[in-house]
Amino acid sequence: MAVVGVMRIFVFFLTFYISLYCANSAATDIELDAKAQFTHRIDSLNLLLYTFLLILTVLTIWLFKHRRFRFLHETGLAVIYGLIVGALIRYAGSKTPVLHMSVTPEKDSKYNLSLPPDTLWLRFPNRGSNPPLPNKTYAYAFREEIVDIEDNEMDLKATFDPEIFFNIILPPIIFHAGYSLKRKYFFRNLGAILTYALIGTTISSFVVGALMYGFIHQMPNLKGSFTFLDTLYFGALISSTDPLTILAIFNDLHVDVNLYALVFGESVLNDAVAIVLSGSIQNYGERYQSGTGGFETQAFFRALGDFFGIFTLSLLIGALMGCITAILTKFTHVRDFPLLESALFVLMSYSTFLIAEASELTGVVAVLFCGICQAHYTYNNLSADSRSRTKKLFELLNFLAENFIFSYIGVSMFTFPKHHFDPGFIFAGFFCAMLGRAVNIYPLSFLLNLGRKPKIPLNFQHMLFFAGLRGAMSFALAIRNTVSDARQAMLTTTSLIVIVTVIVQGGATMQLLTWFKIPVGVEEEVEMLPYAGVRSVYSSMGTTDVEMAEPSRESGGGSRLNDKAWLARIWADFDVKYMKPFLTHARPTLLETLPVCCNPIARILTTTEQMTQDNRSRSQLDSDSDLCIEENELSYGDQRRTSVQRSDSLIASGDLGLGNRLMDTRVRVPGPGGKDI
Amino acid sequence: MAVVGVMRIFVFFLTFYISLYCANSAATDIELDAKAQFTHRIDSLNLLLYTFLLILTVLTIWLFKHRRFRFLHETGLAVIYGLIVGALIRYAGSKTPVLHMSVTPEKDSKYNLSLPPDTLWLRFPNRGSNPPLPNKTYAYAFREEIVDIEDNEMDLKATFDPEIFFNIILPPIIFHAGYSLKRKYFFRNLGAILTYALIGTTISSFVVGALMYGFIHQMPNLKGSFTFLDTLYFGALISSTDPLTILAIFNDLHVDVNLYALVFGESVLNDAVAIVLSGSIQNYGERYQSGTGGFETQAFFRALGDFFGIFTLSLLIGALMGCITAILTKFTHVRDFPLLESALFVLMSYSTFLIAEASELTGVVAVLFCGICQAHYTYNNLSADSRSRTKKLFELLNFLAENFIFSYIGVSMFTFPKHHFDPGFIFAGFFCAMLGRAVNIYPLSFLLNLGRKPKIPLNFQHMLFFAGLRGAMSFALAIRNTVSDARQAMLTTTSLIVIVTVIVQGGATMQLLTWFKIPVGVEEEVEMLPYAGVRSVYSSMGTTDVEMAEPSRESGGGSRLNDKAWLARIWADFDVKYMKPFLTHARPTLLETLPVCCNPIARILTTTEQMTQDNRSRSQLDSDSDLCIEENELSYGDQRRTSVQRSDSLIASGDLGLGNRLMDTRVRVPGPGGKDI
Repeated sequence: MAVVGVMRIFVFFLTFYISLYCANSAATDIELDAKAQFTHRIDSLNLLLYTFLLILTVLTIWLFKHRRFRFLHETGLAVIYGLIVGALIRYAGSKTPVLHMSVTPEKDSKYNLSLPPDTLWLRFPNRGSNPPLPNKTYAYAFREEIVDIEDNEMDLKATFDPEIFFNIILPPIIFHAGYSLKRKYFFRNLGAILTYALIGTTISSFVVGALMYGFIHQMPNLKGSFTFLDTLYFGALISSTDPLTILAIFNDLHVDVNLYALVFGESVLNDAVAIVLSGSIQNYGERYQSGTGGFETQAFFRALGDFFGIFTLSLLIGALMGCITAILTKFTHVRDFPLLESALFVLMSYSTFLIAEASELTGVVAVLFCGICQAHYTYNNLSADSRSRTKKLFELLNFLAENFIFSYIGVSMFTFPKHHFDPGFIFAGFFCAMLGRAVNIYPLSFLLNLGRKPKIPLNFQHMLFFAGLRGAMSFALAIRNTVSDARQAMLTTTSLIVIVTVIVQGGATMQLLTWFKIPVGVEEEVEMLPYAGVRSVYSSMGTTDVEMAEPSRESGGGSRLNDKAWLARIWADFDVKYMKPFLTHARPTLLETLPVCCNPIARILTTTEQMTQDNRSRSQLDSDSDLCIEENELSYGDQRRTSVQRSDSLIASGDLGLGNRLMDTRVRVPGPGGKDI
Repeated sequence: MAVVGVMRIFVFFLTFYISLYCANSAATDIELDAKAQFTHRIDSLNLLLYTFLLILTVLTIWLFKHRRFRFLHETGLAVIYGLIVGALIRYAGSKTPVLHMSVTPEKDSKYNLSLPPDTLWLRFPNRGSNPPLPNKTYAYAFREEIVDIEDNEMDLKATFDPEIFFNIILPPIIFHAGYSLKRKYFFRNLGAILTYALIGTTISSFVVGALMYGFIHQMPNLKGSFTFLDTLYFGALISSTDPLTILAIFNDLHVDVNLYALVFGESVLNDAVAIVLSGSIQNYGERYQSGTGGFETQAFFRALGDFFGIFTLSLLIGALMGCITAILTKFTHVRDFPLLESALFVLMSYSTFLIAEASELTGVVAVLFCGICQAHYTYNNLSADSRSRTKKLFELLNFLAENFIFSYIGVSMFTFPKHHFDPGFIFAGFFCAMLGRAVNIYPLSFLLNLGRKPKIPLNFQHMLFFAGLRGAMSFALAIRNTVSDARQAMLTTTSLIVIVTVIVQGGATMQLLTWFKIPVGVEEEVEMLPYAGVRSVYSSMGTTDVEMAEPSRESGGGSRLNDKAWLARIWADFDVKYMKPFLTHARPTLLETLPVCCNPIARILTTTEQMTQDNRSRSQLDSDSDLCIEENELSYGDQRRTSVQRSDSLIASGDLGLGNRLMDTRVRVPGPGGKDI
């Protein structure tokens, strides 16, 4: 009932909104101030439109969750509502008449630079026109270069500057991904995740780029407007995945944590790879624009250097800022004032993004690794108040930002003026995106399985392939630059791929889980990959803190991970021995781990809290166990209970065809130390 | 130590920042893309500057709080840091060379409207210049009208569009003020608060306006540039107060809750009055610009109608949206999914602002009353998770927004290009602001005391007078329009008044409390005004829920409030009988309060939760008691304990000269139902 009420209000405002646009056409003689006020009203209405779309999405998704209808995720719903409203605005509203004028420099202008001026001052000459032109000077600010005058109506209904996606919408999403990462499982699968994200995304980019270039050469109408760099850019942007919908379902159904870690970890990192890769491609293009798309070896290696340099430096800045925050929260008593502490946390994290952007690095990448470090170190030093405050803050920001961007994708499909629908390119785009994903997953999984002891089974590979939904990052990269026809065709195709994958692949996830016989309802302690054997040892040791125990695994013997995770192990060892004692209140202290000669320094770097800590509180201090359950705990409150009920009912109806195996896991009695959350 | 480290980093970035500005002067031949990237870097650096200022403020204020140094509030500190950094940028950095060009319409232009065009397309004619001018078309967007060409360098270092204050910074501050209002004490002093805020602010505006006009007529250099409307606008904007610093100290020292309510309530409402009043004055000016400042009766009454119309409608929209949120959260089970619920809450609150702005009303006023309604009704329906999440979210946003605006006031004092320092105007401004405040408080207090039983003692009146710090709202109104010389002089004066009052009056608060013999260390249950008698009856009745019991006060007899608070009483009665049962899960239900004939409707509007609620949980559901302690509970964690210790030490050293009275209140044994938090 209430939902219907809101819908009515919404329709009312939509009508109001449209009528306002229409009203504008009669309003050519109002004064300047009134005009400014009008512009402000339009801006407010644009924002209001999205706010209402989000309210509608929230209410509908609540209804779906309430009725246990799981085929549509909130982002899918946001896209659909966006499409509907976008179409309404497009076809119901009249065009906003933007008044424009062509101007030339004044006769005695001394301007002689090749750059366009930043500002123009418009003065009207005293010609006898009727009505007389105003005897005033107006200032204008530079906006863009116009390539295609015919097409440029600047009809910016319900659209925003594309840069806001990079500077406002993406950072909280990416930070939250890092901050809420289930690091235990992430690091356990680090090798596979890095392979897919770094190598896989690069392969996929080049394969898509090359294939698209080939396709386009078969299409006479497109041939001229695309260079190889253009298609490569498309390859890079379409290779970043965003499997939100699938992860939400994984989470609800308790799909195997390692599969979850693979899908989530890869999607987080390939966003970072895609943005840096596309940046390098663009830089390459700007520096060595040869027009023919010719290849220069030196330039190529420079671009490669760019790629690794920017990625590594961004990563380091992010990690460094995370560590500085950890030091600030450890060595000051700012946690006595949780509000100050939370503010410090937010400000430090945001400044990471800004520092990276100001240094011509990639803020998104920096913020991702800052988030991971904040979760790994700083989180442990925070007061309880700040922990919950920051978690909940970023969760909420992430939710709003994600749904906003998907609404925007829907609305902009109709209202963004720079779309270029080309059926050939769209078809090729869909095909190549699919193929690129396959080329990433299957060959690399094969190679990984050669060296990897707990192999990635084929059904997991299929699921990884299908988890290749495209989302926020692809769209943000596509809409960033829409100057040329080629770029506009890319934007259209990317938008369509995002919409279709989110709705179709997202909606099919439940079905696919059944088809691929992916085990659901798996408790965290019982994984399907053979790690379980190793873990149960630690479980029965009465500690839930597996990562802490990891370094001793070697000496404990019987570990099947030794031959693979050596890098992760060295890092974990270093982390537990030096980083955590230095940056957090964790035991052992540096006094215990550093050689005796360093005692004075160790003394300074060890806090009283650290010294007086008993062993019992150690696992409580370590955030990993916290963070591993965070998503379940926070995302949708007491949904865990209902989702267990749901999977019960699924088993009863047998529609997942997993009866036996599932039952096995569900009758398990938790070990003495195993948390049965 | 860590603070020193951060300072070093800060200095490093400042140097970097300045050097970047200098570097710009040699960068005239880089390409367009590089230029865009450079602009982006500058934008990032500008934001980074403020982020670092805020980090520095947070760390320093922590140090102050840690060392119990209470003469400087965080906002005062933010202003001081802002001033230092602003001066550094101004005198160390070189001027950013903005490239500008004067243009005229193309010869065959058919543009014949009196309005300036929205966009310009700049094309260079093919004249033989060296280097050749680019053969491209550039788009420019309208920015402003230029009045004084000499002065217009558009040197926008470290400055932002003034509109962001109204659309981004003020809404969360004002919403938080409404959401965290101690409503119990607010409503009890409603009469006095409304008198000060509505009548007092209006009187003050007109007195300041008239006086300033008189002053200016004595100053030959200013005489020509100010109309009476200009000075009246100044009167309106300088009449809004922002006693953050003083409230923080009141809170720390547990100053009498009614004095707190008077100061806080007045400052919240006079912001709303000032913004609407200044809007009406501006509208009046635009509509009836007679140049001479002449007076038109009809126009005046129309402006008066404007004022009340806009204020009332904004209030109603805010209240309505609050009630809709309450209904949505009551009748749906969205609270099963706290994240969705919090998102809904935030979106509804934000849309209130946008709806009001889009309807040409005042978003700030709407958001204030929305906040009050959200706290009064919706808060009761929220899940525990959402309660804490929304409280903490807005608390954090408020903190960041407040400190940002005060940093900005400091920095912009040096970097904002449109300042006009006129010693005469500044002196007159300070004098009139002080006098305006006195004219608000003393005569109205005298009148109020005639009818009011618990009189407002003279020392409270002095404190109210000194609590007239100016802040965010005055500054935002002053910087909104800086086209004319008059407006620029107003901005400069307002900035200076804000800075001086925040630092000097804020710093003197402790001293003033001693001088005025204002009781500190007062527990909420023991107020200095004679309400205490009434309240203790309810305390001993074993209920902490005074507001719920209020309607029965009349029949209970012995109430000294009867002769004054009749309006508040009628409202409270209606609220408890109809509004709360309708909008929240509170008892009594509508089934009990509505006449029998309305039973079917009442049935629909009563939820199962409401029916099954026992009386015990009633007071828990009612948010008032929660919200009354909210600030103490949340603001600075376990500071309450330390502040009690502090006031203990204050008593010991006797420097507040209140020994006896204070001791009386502190030895009090809490009644059976009295919370001794």
